[in-house]
This record gives sequence, C-alpha cells and structure tokens, in this order.
Amino acid sequence: MTLDPAGTLERRAFLRSAALVGGGLALTAGGGGAALAADGDIARIRKAAEANREADIKRIQDWIALPSIAAENLNMPQGAAYMADLARAAGFTGVEIVPSDGHPGVFGTIDVGARRTLGIYFMYDVKQFDPAEWTSPPLEAKIVDKPGWGKAIVGRGAVNQKGPQATFLAALHAMKAAGVKLPVNIVLLAEGEEEIGSPNFRQIATKPNVLAALRKCAGIFIPACWQGANGEVQVNLGSKGIIELELVASGAKWGRGPKGDVHSSYKAMIDSPTWRLVQALQTLVSADGNNVVIGGWSDNVRPLTAREKALIAEAAKSMDEAQMKASFGVTHWIDDLPLEQALVRLAQEPTANIEGLVAGYTGPGGKTVLPGRAVAKLDFRLVPNQTRAEAEAKLRAHLDKHGFTDIEANVSGGYDPTEVAEDSLLIKAEMAAYARLGVKANLNPRLAGSWPGAVFTAPPVSIPAGHFGIGHGSGAHAPDEYFVVDSSNPKVAGITDATMGFVEMLYQMAAVR
Amino acid sequence: MTLDPAGTLERRAFLRSAALVGGGLALTAGGGGAALAADGDIARIRKAAEANREADIKRIQDWIALPSIAAENLNMPQGAAYMADLARAAGFTGVEIVPSDGHPGVFGTIDVGARRTLGIYFMYDVKQFDPAEWTSPPLEAKIVDKPGWGKAIVGRGAVNQKGPQATFLAALHAMKAAGVKLPVNIVLLAEGEEEIGSPNFRQIATKPNVLAALRKCAGIFIPACWQGANGEVQVNLGSKGIIELELVASGAKWGRGPKGDVHSSYKAMIDSPTWRLVQALQTLVSADGNNVVIGGWSDNVRPLTAREKALIAEAAKSMDEAQMKASFGVTHWIDDLPLEQALVRLAQEPTANIEGLVAGYTGPGGKTVLPGRAVAKLDFRLVPNQTRAEAEAKLRAHLDKHGFTDIEANVSGGYDPTEVAEDSLLIKAEMAAYARLGVKANLNPRLAGSWPGAVFTAPPVSIPAGHFGIGHGSGAHAPDEYFVVDSSNPKVAGITDATMGFVEMLYQMAAVR
Repeated sequence: MTLDPAGTLERRAFLRSAALVGGGLALTAGGGGAALAADGDIARIRKAAEANREADIKRIQDWIALPSIAAENLNMPQGAAYMADLARAAGFTGVEIVPSDGHPGVFGTIDVGARRTLGIYFMYDVKQFDPAEWTSPPLEAKIVDKPGWGKAIVGRGAVNQKGPQATFLAALHAMKAAGVKLPVNIVLLAEGEEEIGSPNFRQIATKPNVLAALRKCAGIFIPACWQGANGEVQVNLGSKGIIELELVASGAKWGRGPKGDVHSSYKAMIDSPTWRLVQALQTLVSADGNNVVIGGWSDNVRPLTAREKALIAEAAKSMDEAQMKASFGVTHWIDDLPLEQALVRLAQEPTANIEGLVAGYTGPGGKTVLPGRAVAKLDFRLVPNQTRAEAEAKLRAHLDKHGFTDIEANVSGGYDPTEVAEDSLLIKAEMAAYARLGVKANLNPRLAGSWPGAVFTAPPVSIPAGHFGIGHGSGAHAPDEYFVVDSSNPKVAGITDATMGFVEMLYQMAAVR
Repeated sequence: MTLDPAGTLERRAFLRSAALVGGGLALTAGGGGAALAADGDIARIRKAAEANREADIKRIQDWIALPSIAAENLNMPQGAAYMADLARAAGFTGVEIVPSDGHPGVFGTIDVGARRTLGIYFMYDVKQFDPAEWTSPPLEAKIVDKPGWGKAIVGRGAVNQKGPQATFLAALHAMKAAGVKLPVNIVLLAEGEEEIGSPNFRQIATKPNVLAALRKCAGIFIPACWQGANGEVQVNLGSKGIIELELVASGAKWGRGPKGDVHSSYKAMIDSPTWRLVQALQTLVSADGNNVVIGGWSDNVRPLTAREKALIAEAAKSMDEAQMKASFGVTHWIDDLPLEQALVRLAQEPTANIEGLVAGYTGPGGKTVLPGRAVAKLDFRLVPNQTRAEAEAKLRAHLDKHGFTDIEANVSGGYDPTEVAEDSLLIKAEMAAYARLGVKANLNPRLAGSWPGAVFTAPPVSIPAGHFGIGHGSGAHAPDEYFVVDSSNPKVAGITDATMGFVEMLYQMAAVR
C-alpha cells in the first residue's frame, strides 16, 4: 500500500489542472532558508549537495538493486540491515533493528541538542514486480530520458520510496559535508511491511525506546516528490483510512457448492459459491455501487467542517475539470455532481471498492467449470472518526445478519484515518518551506488515499504526521516506476533541488512557531 | 468445449456408483458380432488389430505431438492436413479440406456400396495447456502407469479426442488388414474449432457435397471411451445446449467509471464498472443462484416425459449418493433435493453458471485499484426446445430492460440442445453393440453437457447423433489427460478391445432394424 499506488498519474492530473500561481522554483540561488540558517550555510550545503550528486544518485541505484518484498519474504533481513547501514552513513546513532512479529523495523536518532526534534518515516520494502512488463530492468536502476520531465532513474522503488528517502539522506550528507550543524534533532523509524499494510508497524513504533523518541518529535513526515508539471504540491491535513480484505465464498466452507471446480453442467444440481459471492457483494452497497449500506457503517463519520469545505471549494476553482475527466476516462462524476461537490464527496465519503474479482477460469475465452471458490478483493476507505476495527466488526456482523456466515472476510491490512491540524508545527513548517522554495502548496483537507500515519497520529504516539518533499516521480506499483534526478522542467526539482528542499524543511521545522 | 470437459471424474463417479449389472467384457472371444459378420471375419479382424497394436498406439502418440489449438491459432492448417492424411491412410477417399470463415474442416467418405451409411464426427483441435502443470510432458504422449486403470498414454488430446478417434481409425485399419469388407459406408467429417465452440461447423456441414453425404447417414457418432471402473457406459438420448459468453462492464462503454484502472481512492467520486457488473449479474438469477429469471427464459422448455423420468428413476436406484456427494465435495444437492429429484433437475432445468470472474487485480494479496473493466464468463445450459439464438436475444433484452444497455454480452459459442429418439437406428445399434460386447449401457434421457450434435440433428442435416465407444480415458481440458491402452481392469477395454468395439458397432449399424 502507498498513499496513492498506481495513482500518481491521477494525482498529477489534479495538480496539472490547478492554476499556475507562484513563480516556480527559487532554489537555484542560495536564498532559501537564508534568514534561518547562519550566513553562507545554505550556499555551502548546496555546494556540497552539488559535489555529492553522483554519490546521491548511486545511493538510490544501489538501494534499488536490493529489493525487499515482504509479500514474498524476499531479502527482508538484508533489507533491514541495508537500511540500518544507510542510516548510520547519514549520521544516525544508536541504529537498531527493531524486531516485530513480522519483519523488523529500523530505528535511529541524531541528537544535536536542538530545541526541536523532527521524525522521519521510511519504508525499506518495495512492491512486487514482473521484469517482463518493464522496458528497463527494474533492478538495474538505469537513468533514462522521460520526455517532459528529464532524466530519471527507472526501477522498482524509484519513487516508492527509495528515491525520495535517499534524497532526504542526501540532505543530511550534504550538511555533514558542509560542516553545518543540523537545526533539529532527527528520529528515523523505518518499516519493511508497508506494502502489505504495515501489520506490525504499531508494535515497532510502540517499543518503549522508540515510543519515547517519537513522542519527543514535533511532527513526522515521509519524504515525498509529488510535484506536478506546474510545480505545485499538495499538503494534506490527514488521510482516509482503509481496510483491505478478501471476501471468499467456497464450497468447502459452505458445505454447498463443490470443493474444487467441477463441470459446469452440474450447475443444475449443485449450488454455486460464485453466485453466492455475487449475492453477498450486492448487499454491501446501494444499487449504484456508490454508498456503503452495511448497518451502522457511517455512525461515526464526522462531517467535513466549513473550513475543510472552503479549502476544497478554493482548490476546485483552479482545476480543469474537462482535463481531469479526460485523464480518468470518465464523462460524469458520481451522481453527475459538479466538480466541487465531487471533490467534497472524495474527501467526505467512506467507500466500498472492488479491487479485483477472481473465480474459476480467468484466461482467454471460456471454460465450462462450476468454480468451487470465488474471491472478491475489496477495499473500504474510512473517514474520521471511523476505525479499522469498527469497520471489520460491522462488515462481519452484516454478512452474518444476511445469512452469509460461511463467507470469509479475510482482512489483510488497513489503517485508521488520520488528521493533522492546519496550525500544527509540522504543517506550518511545510507551508513555510514550500513558500521559501517558491513552490505553490495547496492545502488539502483530506487525502483520499491511505497511509500508516495513524500509527503516529493516534495514541500513544500522538504527533502530527504528513508528507513533505519536492521533485517528481511516478509509477508506484506499476512497471517503469521512475524518479527524476535531472529535471528538464524549470518548475520541477531535480535531485539537488529536492535535497535542498529537505534542508529548507529542517530549518523551517526549527524556526516555525 | 467438450461434452464434459474436466468433468470426467464426476461422470465416472456416477458410473462407479451404478450397480454392477452385467458380466463385464465379452471381448476376448471372437463372439462379438459373429452373427452378423461372415464366418471368421471377427477373428481375423481381431488378429489384425492385435498385430497392429504398436502402430495403433503410435498413431495416437504422433497425433498428440502436433497440437492444433484454434484459440491460439496454433498449427491449424497443419492439423487439418494431418487429419486428412489420417483419413486417407484409413481408407477414406475424396478427402477434402473444407474451408470456412474460421479454420477448415476435413471431409471424406468410404463407399463400399453398402445399404447403410454411418457418419463419424471428429475434432482435430485440442484444448490449451500449460506444460508446467503436467507430470508427463503433454506433447510427448508417454505411456505411464495409471493405478487402477492400467497403462495409459498421457498427453493433450489423449482422451479428448485423439485417443478414441484414432482407435476408430484403428478399426478401419484392422478390417483392411484382415481383408474384410466394411458392412456400412462411412462419412467422416472433422472440424478444428470444437474447443472454441464450433463457430463455423454448421457452415462446413452444410457445404453442398458434405450436406448431401451427411443426409445419407442413418446416424452419426463421435468416438468415445466412457467406461467407468465397473465397465458401464451411458447412452444419451440427447444433450443440453449451451451459450457461452462474457458479460463485460467497462468505463469505456458506460461513460462512467474509468477507462483503465485508477487508484481506488477515487471510488468516492468515480463510478465502478465492477459494482455495475455485480448488480447486473444478480438480476439474472434467483437469490439462491439456481434459477434463471431472465424474462421468458423458460417459455419454450419442454418438460421431461414420463419415459424420461422413468429412465432417471431407474438410474438413481443403482447410484451411491454418498459416494457421489463425496466426489463432488458437497453435502447437499440444490434445495436439499433427494438424489432422484436432483437428477431430474440435472436433466430438466436450464442453468446460468459463472465460469469465471475477472476484474482488476487478480494476483496474491491486494492492490488498491478501481478497475475500469470487469468480466463475468457465463454459460447458460439450454434444454429442448430452447435455442441458442433465443437465449442470446432474451439475455440482451433483459439487460436492456434493466438499464444495463452498456454491458456487453459477447457470445463466444454455443449449441442448440439435441434430442435422439430411443428407437432411432443409431441408438438401437449402440444398445445392440454394447449388449454384444457385454457392456452394460444405461439409457440417459439427456446429457447435461453440450456438444455440436445439433449441427447434425437440426435441419438441414436432420440425422440422429450421439456418442459411442468403450475403453477409458479422463482429464479432458486438465493436466495429465490420459487414454488407457492396456487395461488392468477386466471390465474396461484397452485399445484392442476398444478397436473391436467400433468394429462391432459397424456390424450392428448395418444389421439393426
């Protein structure tokens, strides 16, 4: 799971369509952060970042060459050890592999005796991949031309998340090389199970020494590189939660329907688990598939505030609706809503989505089988104040109430929704940093995607959590995933500017009130 | 498509559970057909068949080595040419590749000036296969031990249909080698698109010279090898029809929902073609999935006759219901019916079956996509006097009436139901032949499976059509498909006995009144 796996294109469509306000990057001068950093520090850091450029690129490439995939139990101890080495090399001390019931996390700190501490969240795992689908080998991390964007590293994990994460480390390397002291202490916490829904991350984050360190943080962010072609970024004041699960109807569990696939002619005397799944599915949503009708589902939904609606209305004004529709390939939003109301719905509504259906014969043409098993892969997006636990319990109760006690609901992962206050230090620092960087930042009341941020925003950690970074990459979870290192678009940061973006954020985090 | 692809196991379960009436094979002596053939002819033919045994086995193996797969457009001209060569070698003259809008048929005749003419239907194509799933390479046609059955050729097409078809040819070779004149003229018609639903076979069968030859036939059969472990066979007095199709819901066609897959978070503002498919599907059947509720669907259904019900009641008596349920992996038949009523339902009722569901992400775990396209692979079994054309039209009208005008119903193939009179020459000859062979034959009013027989039974051909043969094989459409050449079960024929079974049928076809 990522914030927006495979959805970068759509996000970009949103961004592209926003009005071009602001004058692009102001990063080429030493001006960013100058008021906060000591005289000449920023210039020295940039010089060091420029000098480190080849090493910074190679750090991403080398990391990509070692894919850790939790779903396949591939290179997990190796990935954690590599992550620990990367942390140590960037200056973290007390670096520790944190065991869990699943794959371990990695924890480390840099304590410079600063007044404030900033948290950084990394993932060292990547999504599965099929090399046959790639035009450039996914582990070779070659640099290729991406027309309209510039030169980019192509590889699994390039944008999700090795590229932006290694670029954050590049910022620390540059400051060290420049002999500039960090303006904040840093706590790093990495996990290796993000792509399978972070099932053990809470355990890692609440290990006593880790928890104590996290609670000192004024906020925590995951490095990002979400600039669209117009250079703009979104700052999300929270995100939806999610539960991901498989609904499984099977003859084995039901006692009716065959255990395995049998010849379809027997449908006349044998029940079909696939029809049963279809019947169960259609009880979950309204006839148009757009509203969850599971009993009590929306009881705890907090309506959007006036401020949140105003932010959406403001954002809607600068969007190009026709272009957005074209990029999605739709002619109407749900219920034929106008854009602003569709965006309100995007932020506000819980959803039930079928990610995939699998039953019987799935190849080309047909095969006359009566399948013994049918699976629907679902995700339910949750909004404050719904919780993952609540959703799971209500779904089960609904299925049971409708007589589908035999249908399994196998939850594979999920997160609670998150919220971050607009006036939190983290968001204020982000907005200040983007302003200094000359990057237009659009406040978004709620990301419709989901991420493990609730581990940080909820008790016992209870700190603001978000995303920060400039630069660009795309193709998370998809073939030819890439991260731009050399930008041909003056409004979009390449690797050195993105490195300096993180530097700016450190200074803003130290200074903001 | 076959009569019962992947269903041989289930059919066998039926047969195994029937009472052991009759005394097994009487094939080892020269007695079979002796009354009809000239003195010593049967013994001479058997001697020739025994002498040809290695060549008869090699004929099957060599044929398997050349897979023709219409769905993949693999070796189709080669397969037709090979079929033509096999026919010529067996004595057919005027052998002709019959072109069609798809892949060609093969036609030939043997005219010995006999009073009666028998039609033989072959298919030269085979089902797709994945060698990784086989324990013996599917094109190598090795002979392996099948515990309980004996030595069998394992390969794609072994039972469906190269094994039994080549064994029919072996009968002609044996008679030629023995210098015995055929008791009937023979018309052979083969197609290469059976596995994709015979879309062009009617065209081939109604080419004027082919049609003229077929109309002279007293009946036509497809070689079979359906003996169960107790040696019994079924004689079907017809079969259900079928339409096979894909129901496709897509954003592209609908105008709502995305053209391709988009990130699932957008479900809150974008409609889902997958939910739409689910909604459309559930309108097709009753809540339990067991009755087709499409308007007017059953208007033309002819109820079973008293004779048909009596045949089913008789068959039910000798079946082992517990064993049948165990082999299917079910604890109840539909509606908790007792066996006899379940078997009546099997013969009587039209069905709607979901062969497969495919949408979005179908791999292990989840992937947060909102799919742009969802497909249900369906088969509808039809009973007399429903027709394929009627079914297709009524399904379309139903979808349109319920507002699903955007949902495509792409019919890939199908057959009308067939019926063969119990007192037709073909069925009488089959029953007589099985009796002479000492094989108990159970009259079955209607095969719940489907085959292209309607091309023969319906105008303009209008001849009885069925299946005949002894011997055993299984695994049609599945890995490790096999055909027994050397039977270790005294009640089941090996290749030489099966060859002699066809010889017997030729004599009975000539003699029966």
